[in-house]
Amino acid sequence: MAKGITSRDVDYSRWYLDVIAAAKLADYAPVKGCMVVRPNGYAIWECMQAQLDKMFKDTGHVNAYFPLFIPESFLKKEAEHVEGFAPECAVVTHGGGKKLEEPLVVRPTSETVIWSMYKDWIQSYRDLPLLINQWANVVRWEMRTRLFLRTMEFLWQEGHTAHATEFEAEEEALKILDIYKTFAEEYMAMPVLCGLKTDKERFAGAVKTYCIEAMMQDKKALQAGTSHNLGQNFAKAFDVKFQNERGDLDYVWATSWGVSTRLIGGLIMTHSDDKGLVVPPKLAPVQVALVPIWRSDDEKSDVLATMNKIVDGWKDQFRFKLDDRENYRPGWKFNEWEKLGAPIRIEMGPKDLQNKQVVMVRRDTGEKSMVDIEHVTATVRSMLTDIQKAMFDRAAKCRDENSHIVDDYAELKERLDSEGGFYYIHWNGKRETEDQLQNETKATIRVIRNDQPDETGKCIFTGEPSQRRVVVAKSY
Amino acid sequence: MAKGITSRDVDYSRWYLDVIAAAKLADYAPVKGCMVVRPNGYAIWECMQAQLDKMFKDTGHVNAYFPLFIPESFLKKEAEHVEGFAPECAVVTHGGGKKLEEPLVVRPTSETVIWSMYKDWIQSYRDLPLLINQWANVVRWEMRTRLFLRTMEFLWQEGHTAHATEFEAEEEALKILDIYKTFAEEYMAMPVLCGLKTDKERFAGAVKTYCIEAMMQDKKALQAGTSHNLGQNFAKAFDVKFQNERGDLDYVWATSWGVSTRLIGGLIMTHSDDKGLVVPPKLAPVQVALVPIWRSDDEKSDVLATMNKIVDGWKDQFRFKLDDRENYRPGWKFNEWEKLGAPIRIEMGPKDLQNKQVVMVRRDTGEKSMVDIEHVTATVRSMLTDIQKAMFDRAAKCRDENSHIVDDYAELKERLDSEGGFYYIHWNGKRETEDQLQNETKATIRVIRNDQPDETGKCIFTGEPSQRRVVVAKSY
Repeated sequence: MAKGITSRDVDYSRWYLDVIAAAKLADYAPVKGCMVVRPNGYAIWECMQAQLDKMFKDTGHVNAYFPLFIPESFLKKEAEHVEGFAPECAVVTHGGGKKLEEPLVVRPTSETVIWSMYKDWIQSYRDLPLLINQWANVVRWEMRTRLFLRTMEFLWQEGHTAHATEFEAEEEALKILDIYKTFAEEYMAMPVLCGLKTDKERFAGAVKTYCIEAMMQDKKALQAGTSHNLGQNFAKAFDVKFQNERGDLDYVWATSWGVSTRLIGGLIMTHSDDKGLVVPPKLAPVQVALVPIWRSDDEKSDVLATMNKIVDGWKDQFRFKLDDRENYRPGWKFNEWEKLGAPIRIEMGPKDLQNKQVVMVRRDTGEKSMVDIEHVTATVRSMLTDIQKAMFDRAAKCRDENSHIVDDYAELKERLDSEGGFYYIHWNGKRETEDQLQNETKATIRVIRNDQPDETGKCIFTGEPSQRRVVVAKSY
Repeated sequence: MAKGITSRDVDYSRWYLDVIAAAKLADYAPVKGCMVVRPNGYAIWECMQAQLDKMFKDTGHVNAYFPLFIPESFLKKEAEHVEGFAPECAVVTHGGGKKLEEPLVVRPTSETVIWSMYKDWIQSYRDLPLLINQWANVVRWEMRTRLFLRTMEFLWQEGHTAHATEFEAEEEALKILDIYKTFAEEYMAMPVLCGLKTDKERFAGAVKTYCIEAMMQDKKALQAGTSHNLGQNFAKAFDVKFQNERGDLDYVWATSWGVSTRLIGGLIMTHSDDKGLVVPPKLAPVQVALVPIWRSDDEKSDVLATMNKIVDGWKDQFRFKLDDRENYRPGWKFNEWEKLGAPIRIEMGPKDLQNKQVVMVRRDTGEKSMVDIEHVTATVRSMLTDIQKAMFDRAAKCRDENSHIVDDYAELKERLDSEGGFYYIHWNGKRETEDQLQNETKATIRVIRNDQPDETGKCIFTGEPSQRRVVVAKSY
């Protein structure tokens, strides 16, 4: 256990905040519930953004920017939407020293302002599909906040697409869900379940909400991204019609979807340990930290010369840092890079130099190995691949070991409290039962998996018939 | 002149808005003074961001994110700062359905909230320099807005650095000014003058404000970026002290600097023409638009096959678009790419195919040339370089031809009205004279150039002695 980091076993919440502080990822801001994303945290966000942005663009999406302020009246145009978001809004009442005629809401999400613009931009089927994403900040008034997981202001991307047919909108919502799954699993090394939210958990204004759900190390669920099929709800609210190929007027079909800086919280809670942050190679701002060891100036120049030769040509292959700072001792630097979660650390002192070797240390396992200088580049390449895979496998194993099938309500209740984890149960599909579950267990139905096999069973609460199991867990 | 675009000679302001509409760069939002940056405009901003971000990182800066909301009391901690910004603030008074105890200001700029954090992050000279940038939205309540040039909300980057010495802070402010100049001239192809603002035009809270100033096609000046040496003003306001190498406590030295989506306005007004947008190759989202021409399906497949062969391998060299849309005729596409400002258009029909040639059209000059298929890639490469240079040269020529030395106040006044342009005048350095100039001519002192030679002269207003000329112009 690193100095200043509480062990996960002692206090998980405390551990989480300690890891963030030790790696200098974020701080609370002067305004309660707001967050400062520090350079180390922001560098991870930039790696996430770069990859997601590429995946969106490769599937035909373009970026744009819509305004921060939304007239209060806009929010009210979609009945469910206002009910969901009005209580969470920050409201601007004064500007330029004067009271405003109509208060402005700081966007909690941008469906309303975007669909007010789409009304002007969409006339014909030729204007469709419209596949727009924006990277932006949003504000939702939150009382109980936690860095990255739930903050008053957060950074996210929100996609807003318009389609000519219901089929295309549904296809888009599922295509994005698949991008989110790929990103979570192949980049974050965080296994996720994909599927539908229940009506109770649906996005305010959506017809269907798809989500990806991950299990954290404390066996709680984290909703990591959502993709909504909005049907024609916002097109109707903002009167957005188009002329179809047959010449008829019809309302436009829509989707919206988003992931946020919450992903950084998920990354931390999936992989990190009592020594600090652990970041999967594909998203690590520094994949390899090289720490030279010397006592004399001569040793220093010999070691640095060789290390510089090792990293020659690495610039296009790896993100690395040769940590030649004078003010800090090697031991301090080892500890520092451990806290920061760099996947590989390479150490080299005068004796290693003599033996034409370096020490390589894997952050995820702590495993040390001696590697001949000539093999370092190839070893780094394969080790980064190995680490990425091992991190996913460990997280998947943890998730699977803590996923259970139960058919008895008393057992469910007891195990949710004593063990935590994901529970596959039969449910009658009714809102009242779902409310009862939440009230009595503090757990919720997280997802109705897309790939859940049909299975005739009896609702765990009422004994009524059920066609497939749903996943229940406590969550963030 | 393109349909729907007013000629520059007829109405310059109208032309500007017509170009923006024709190229679908931006729209006014539902909230007065706010802007929607449409995908075509945002793609230019992304090209700008990518280059600037690289330049900042290459000089040791890192990105972070600070909160949107600032407690109203923070703004008041620096006397000049609050005077400058309080009248422009949007104020949040309600959140989560309740009235707030202290109103929150939507950031007009982030010095105050950032220095409140720096207080925690800086203890010793080891923590310095701190070189942080953020890409963010800011809000300044504006009554007279114009798309990109002046909007209530805009996107920008703001750098905020902390240093151990006055010398280092000054060096940083000048280093950034140089980055801005390089970006403006080598990427935007927009020549700029570099130097100091007068005390009257200084940033509220700065010791010195450096700027880059460009001349638009209507001979007005545009302030395109500023870099401030903040001295110890914000360190004192937020009590940010550090222990220096001798063990003494001292206030930290600071800079801040920013450029915004206003640059897109500058880009449009420097280069575009009566046919629409003209974008320099280095910032063009699409550098080469390829338009195939066909009548029959056979022709179509032959032409497309050859064009696809031409662009094979272009992906890592150029940003290009093979416009094979079915719904539009070639003539419509030519016109469209002209409005969008793609630097090079390549046309190819069945006859060209027979002759093993394509037609290449330069957007900046309209010049057409026939190019053998085997030479297209090399020609594109050299032509993009030529266009970039020619655009800068034309803008520099326009600026130089409209820059004048004058020593007579009546002449200055008359020519500012009749011709516009930049006027190099002697000035006594006093605020009263500067106010008089502005009141009587509607022009302002734009910049005291860093490279302006010393020259003894007499103030154009008062006859008092002056050591060097300053640049006067009407401005945006």
